Amino acid sequence: MALSTRPEREQPRGQARRCQILDAAAICFAREGFHGTSIAALSKAAGMSPGHIYHFFENKEAIIAALVERKLEQSLEMVRQFENAEDVFQALIDRVDLGLNEKTDLDNAALELEILAEAARNPRVAASVREADRIKRERLMGVLRSARRARGLTHDSDGAAVTEILMALFDGLAARVINHPDLDRAALVPLLRTALRTFIEGD
Amino acid sequence: MALSTRPEREQPRGQARRCQILDAAAICFAREGFHGTSIAALSKAAGMSPGHIYHFFENKEAIIAALVERKLEQSLEMVRQFENAEDVFQALIDRVDLGLNEKTDLDNAALELEILAEAARNPRVAASVREADRIKRERLMGVLRSARRARGLTHDSDGAAVTEILMALFDGLAARVINHPDLDRAALVPLLRTALRTFIEGD
Repeated sequence: MALSTRPEREQPRGQARRCQILDAAAICFAREGFHGTSIAALSKAAGMSPGHIYHFFENKEAIIAALVERKLEQSLEMVRQFENAEDVFQALIDRVDLGLNEKTDLDNAALELEILAEAARNPRVAASVREADRIKRERLMGVLRSARRARGLTHDSDGAAVTEILMALFDGLAARVINHPDLDRAALVPLLRTALRTFIEGD
Repeated sequence: MALSTRPEREQPRGQARRCQILDAAAICFAREGFHGTSIAALSKAAGMSPGHIYHFFENKEAIIAALVERKLEQSLEMVRQFENAEDVFQALIDRVDLGLNEKTDLDNAALELEILAEAARNPRVAASVREADRIKRERLMGVLRSARRARGLTHDSDGAAVTEILMALFDGLAARVINHPDLDRAALVPLLRTALRTFIEGD
C-alpha cells in the first residue's frame, strides 16, 4: 500500500522523534500551507536539525503521507470502539459530538483542507489520501452494517452510498467551520443524530 | 463589504477581459495552487500581459476575492430560481442533482478546497469567504423557510442549524470527490433527497 514509509521496527526514541516532527508539521502545514513550509521552518518548529528530519522523512510528501497514515490510525481506533460497543447504533448516536468537535476544530480543519487541496493536484499525495479513505470507508461501512443489525433491520440498504453520505456530512463540517467559525456547534448535535438515524435505518 | 474590487461601471470589453482572467485563475489555482501560481504563469494562461492583469487586479488576493464573489453570484442565481419556484420544496428536491454535480466536479472541488485552505491562514481571503458565506447562508435560510411553508409546516424549526447542516452536506461532497473520485454519484441522489426532506420537515 502507498501509505507507509516507516521502518517496521523503529526504536521508541525514534518513534518519539518522528511524532515530534509530525506534530510540528501538522501545525506548520495548517498555518503556512504545505508549499509555504520549508524544511528549515519545520526544523525550527520541531526543534531539531534538517538532517534529523531527513533521517526520518525523504521529503515533505513523505511527511504528508505519514500525517495521513496517523490520522487513519486515529480513525480506525474510533472505528474499533464502535465495533466493540454493546449497541453499535447507540454508540454512534451517543458519540456524534466527538466527530463534530474533531471536524470543527479550526487547526484540524485547516490541515484537512490543506491536505485535500494538495491531493487534488499532487498524484502522490492523492494516492495516500485515497488509500486511507478506502480503508476507513470500508471499515465504516462494516460499522454501519452492524448498527443496522443492532436495530434489528434486515431489509436491504445501499451501505456504500449511506457510508459516503455520512462521510460527506462530517467532512463538510470542516469546510463549514472555515466558512463560518462561529457556527453553533451544539445546535448541530441533534441534527447529526437525526441524520445518523435516518440514513442507518433507511426509508 | 469586503468582496468587491470591481469598479461600478465597467465597459463590456473590460468585463470580458476580467472574466478571461478569472477563468484562467480558476484553472491555475485548482491545478497549481494559489501560491504555486505566479502572475507570470497566470498571464500566460489568460493570454494577456501581466500589466493587463494588474490593470484589473491589484494582486492574487484580489483575484481570489473576485472568484469568491463570482461564485456567490452563481449561488444567488440558483437561490433566486428556488425563490421563484411555484413549489419551493419540490424545486429543491427536483434539483438536488445540480448541486451534487457541481460539488463533485473535480476542478470545481479542487478550487473550492484550495480557497478554503488559503482562507484558513490568510485573514483577507478569510474575510471574503466568510462574507460570501454569510450572504449565501442567510438567503438559503429564507429558501428553507419558504420550503417549510410550501409544505404547510408551521411548527418551529431551528432554521439556522438546518441551513448549516445542509450546507455541510453539500460542501462535504467536494471533499468526498477528492478522497474518492469514483464515488457513485447517482446512488447519492435519493439520499440527498431524503436528507432535504428530513431536515426541512423536521422531526
